[in-house]
Amino acid sequence: MSYKVIFQPSGSRGEIEPDTSLLDAARTMGVDLEALCGGAGVCGKCKVIIMEGYFTRYNVRSSQEHLTVLTSEEQELLQEEEIAKGCRLACLSSVQGDLVVYVPPESQRSRQVILEEGREREYKLLPAVEAFSMQLQPPSLEDNRADAQRLQEALEENSGLRPAIDYLVLKDLPGEIRQENYQVQADMWKEKEIIRVTPAARGRSKRWGLAVDVGTTTVAAYLCDLDAGEVKAKASDVNPQVAYGEDIISRITFSGQKPEHRKTMQQMIIDTVTGLAHKMTEEAGGTPEDILDAAVVFNSVMHHLFLGFDPRHLGGSPFVPASKDSLDIKARDLGLGINPSAYVHTLPLISGYVGADNVALLIAEEPHKKEELGLYIDIGTNGEVDLGNKAKLSCTSCATGPALEGAQIKFGMRAAPGAIEKVIISPEDLEPRYKIIGQESWYPDIIETPARGLCGSGIIDLVAEMYKAGIIDQGGRLQKELEHSRIRQGASGRMEYVVAWSGETGQSRDVIIDQQDIRAVQLAKAALFVGAEILMEQRGIQVPEFITLAGAFGNYINQESALAIGMFPSCEPEKIYSVGNSAGDGARLALLNREKREEACHLAREVSFVETALDSTFQERYIEALGFPQKI
Amino acid sequence: MSYKVIFQPSGSRGEIEPDTSLLDAARTMGVDLEALCGGAGVCGKCKVIIMEGYFTRYNVRSSQEHLTVLTSEEQELLQEEEIAKGCRLACLSSVQGDLVVYVPPESQRSRQVILEEGREREYKLLPAVEAFSMQLQPPSLEDNRADAQRLQEALEENSGLRPAIDYLVLKDLPGEIRQENYQVQADMWKEKEIIRVTPAARGRSKRWGLAVDVGTTTVAAYLCDLDAGEVKAKASDVNPQVAYGEDIISRITFSGQKPEHRKTMQQMIIDTVTGLAHKMTEEAGGTPEDILDAAVVFNSVMHHLFLGFDPRHLGGSPFVPASKDSLDIKARDLGLGINPSAYVHTLPLISGYVGADNVALLIAEEPHKKEELGLYIDIGTNGEVDLGNKAKLSCTSCATGPALEGAQIKFGMRAAPGAIEKVIISPEDLEPRYKIIGQESWYPDIIETPARGLCGSGIIDLVAEMYKAGIIDQGGRLQKELEHSRIRQGASGRMEYVVAWSGETGQSRDVIIDQQDIRAVQLAKAALFVGAEILMEQRGIQVPEFITLAGAFGNYINQESALAIGMFPSCEPEKIYSVGNSAGDGARLALLNREKREEACHLAREVSFVETALDSTFQERYIEALGFPQKI
Repeated sequence: MSYKVIFQPSGSRGEIEPDTSLLDAARTMGVDLEALCGGAGVCGKCKVIIMEGYFTRYNVRSSQEHLTVLTSEEQELLQEEEIAKGCRLACLSSVQGDLVVYVPPESQRSRQVILEEGREREYKLLPAVEAFSMQLQPPSLEDNRADAQRLQEALEENSGLRPAIDYLVLKDLPGEIRQENYQVQADMWKEKEIIRVTPAARGRSKRWGLAVDVGTTTVAAYLCDLDAGEVKAKASDVNPQVAYGEDIISRITFSGQKPEHRKTMQQMIIDTVTGLAHKMTEEAGGTPEDILDAAVVFNSVMHHLFLGFDPRHLGGSPFVPASKDSLDIKARDLGLGINPSAYVHTLPLISGYVGADNVALLIAEEPHKKEELGLYIDIGTNGEVDLGNKAKLSCTSCATGPALEGAQIKFGMRAAPGAIEKVIISPEDLEPRYKIIGQESWYPDIIETPARGLCGSGIIDLVAEMYKAGIIDQGGRLQKELEHSRIRQGASGRMEYVVAWSGETGQSRDVIIDQQDIRAVQLAKAALFVGAEILMEQRGIQVPEFITLAGAFGNYINQESALAIGMFPSCEPEKIYSVGNSAGDGARLALLNREKREEACHLAREVSFVETALDSTFQERYIEALGFPQKI
Repeated sequence: MSYKVIFQPSGSRGEIEPDTSLLDAARTMGVDLEALCGGAGVCGKCKVIIMEGYFTRYNVRSSQEHLTVLTSEEQELLQEEEIAKGCRLACLSSVQGDLVVYVPPESQRSRQVILEEGREREYKLLPAVEAFSMQLQPPSLEDNRADAQRLQEALEENSGLRPAIDYLVLKDLPGEIRQENYQVQADMWKEKEIIRVTPAARGRSKRWGLAVDVGTTTVAAYLCDLDAGEVKAKASDVNPQVAYGEDIISRITFSGQKPEHRKTMQQMIIDTVTGLAHKMTEEAGGTPEDILDAAVVFNSVMHHLFLGFDPRHLGGSPFVPASKDSLDIKARDLGLGINPSAYVHTLPLISGYVGADNVALLIAEEPHKKEELGLYIDIGTNGEVDLGNKAKLSCTSCATGPALEGAQIKFGMRAAPGAIEKVIISPEDLEPRYKIIGQESWYPDIIETPARGLCGSGIIDLVAEMYKAGIIDQGGRLQKELEHSRIRQGASGRMEYVVAWSGETGQSRDVIIDQQDIRAVQLAKAALFVGAEILMEQRGIQVPEFITLAGAFGNYINQESALAIGMFPSCEPEKIYSVGNSAGDGARLALLNREKREEACHLAREVSFVETALDSTFQERYIEALGFPQKI
């Protein structure tokens, strides 16, 4: 003799011996159920809700009688309202009849999922889209409820919820539920809306999600499995809007000119993300329709251009965004090529300057959960700096410009083969040694590829080494008094330093850095430095307890060089961490754990945004910060 | 000395003398506020909610102090919760300072709006979309809230509500609010979502709504002003789906064959309604974007085809619809060419047979509010019959087929010029007299147009007169024994009666009715009759207290002829009312009063649907009803 037990939302069903505890039943059936105390009846974590199963529907006994009676321990550990709605502790209640048991999200075990890339981040898998497996009653002349209402009522019996059904799902519902004889999987978004119904007899339908970090220059996307939390595929592409301007100001200008321009800009980026989604789903063996959720982060301007919002007022004081709040927009309204019934979740902005990418960094790095006071620097086309801990968080935006990424530098280029990424200059003979992306050896040793230019980390190394070798002074001036073949006046009339000679290893012209390039680096690093300095001063500290460098760039930067040119406040080198694309990590966390979305909204409101330009000492500090620190 | 008072949602503002009652202030400013007792402080109808106005924001005094203190009469007439949320009675509270006052929908006067066409119907104007006029604070460096949040917070101050903002509205929000220096009109759907924001300085933006009755053969549409309740324009068109079958079964068959067929069918009808909307808005001097709401009714099959739902299972037992509930679908999701942010409201179905058009009839005729027990007959391609009063309502669907509308009758045609619409046959010489649509005189008097065929009312007259004259017997058989030139065997071998001779008045061939046509009329009228009979029997009555004939056809039918052939149970002729297109009236009522939508949902659940085919006596009754009643 045994009883039928069904666990929801997984839909797992099994035959269970009488007097088996629900916790043991869950374990036998592989159902994800938390039990910190291991079933000792003391932690109160294994809460489940007893639902009326459809097979007890015509049964006179109430489903509560299909369990052993409520124990005194349960009465103590559960709230009265919980007991009223059928809540029990799985380890203390044993099967006495057929049952449908709902495991609420808070009782699902943390699956110890690890985000790869950079650092290990553990998080609880709690996607916004849950799946329910159900066997519906086939209709008859006596029970000719409509398909939608039949589904909703079955779901209500199985979960206590009665969500709406997306219009597009309704269109094909009659066919979908009949295909496998009324055995269905219903995917529900945030307990509010059914966004997909598929025949379920052949096992679970794929449930994927898309996390996207839309940068000014680069778009990074991740395809994740919502059930396992793992990354199925990654892909990235150039943001095609660069064709209309490398920096955000020219994009605001262009898209603000005419509504059609704004439409074009949106279409370009939406098409790019659609392309990435198609590429990744194909690679992972599915279709874009399998993507049921998406989380997207961006800076404030990319946010507006992605959503098609009028961006004009982001470009001038008082820098007001169209909307700051997180949004959930139907994929079909955006024209994004994933499941058209899915919602695309955008993380909130902090201000017209500080975007959702910084919010994503915060939910990934979690400064608000740490005792230590950390400084978080995200180096991109716009720099963002956060300072804080449990007690308080503040942030600012720094107009670094793209120099630190290699743009607006004469020989600047992206971190691609041919780019000089590391430089050392001998203080004795002022001759450089450098490493090119794509090959192991250093110049002047065997060099196979010609140096084509300098990427961000190469530029920072170069300026730092020139300063250390005395080629530039503390004010950043190139020392023309030094008699050296590499130090010369260029065709522009400006002084320059030759990093690589033309002819040498096959390059067609001299790769140089000139006085103007050095000034651009100085302006950029001073902006970052002053931003951090003002935040620290407001907090009353001199030195942060640690520094976290985020942004893809942060991974490649030579921290010693960055400190040497004064890019950020001094800090013990072992307390400087490079964490890679934190914004992308944050997007994935928001995708896989819906509580992170609430945390993001909370943080966006709570972080105090410091407008450094409003600080009366800003100009003075900025000018002071243009120079380099004393050499150590 | 005077104070600023703003009433919402109208946005009316004025300078009011101290000690003026809010009711008088509302009257002075032309604000719509109910006061049944005329301000005597006894009816409790003039409830208003005192909001914090933005101009009291930096003011230390609370806004309640800007009014005289709560009177004991108010304490009696208001609930405790109402008082807690700032509710007052307008006739009992007087102005003592600047104020923002919200007039909730229930306190807005019934505007005694009359639906034209057919009957006078009085209803309360309470559209689902309300308009709020507001002056927003311009942003500054100190107040750089996002535009969306600025709008939401202003609306919250003005109404206590914080609705979401439709995604499309967000796109252009920055431009819209700045166009008239932050003076805006926000249109809000069901207190949940802002669906339009327009600059407001130049007066109120047009607020229109669309009511549509999608019939199997004809589509009727009305353009209404949501503020005045009046019809701005009317238009109708043929349902283009007739190209794929005149009856619902062939349309189910065609659209069930392939998803593309279903798409085509939906596109056709959506395009037709869009066309009507464009035509009407142009006529009324506006654009389709001015249409902010829509209410649509249809039978169950047209419902599925309009919404693009898979209709296959409506066509076979147990006749299960995809969804029965009322739906609110974004116009853009339907592809309907009105304001893309508007919702299209579809009224609920009662069953797979009885559609939203019958629900619309019920909210228009309101049998559930009457003491008298009425029989409501809607004659269309499918007949629907409702019986009931306050105590109970039941309904059934009758497979009449299209014979009563003139289809499937050899010389049947639509009620268009050339159609014979009225017939009298002399019992003496069996010669007919008839009237043709489009001319005044009767045959055989001066006839200008040839008779082209018979429309519905003409067919019923003809059959009734043939019976009364003894040309057909009680069983419906044409009496071939009668020697008369008009009674003959036709080319088909069937007996026939010649209504109009070829050559006469220029027609090219004899217009006849034959035995097969008469049988089709008998089958149709028997179906209606038995439907009504079973409902009456279940209710335990022999005769209804009155009969209401709905459907465009019901207006033209000769009630005496209908009674003579036994189309419906006998009833005193002065107790038979023809009400025209009740379904269309119901659609307009649902458009103009959102409480009617709730009433519709309630009725759709409460009406008991009687499946006449399940009645064991149905076959027997049906055969019996095929014959004609005893002549009186």
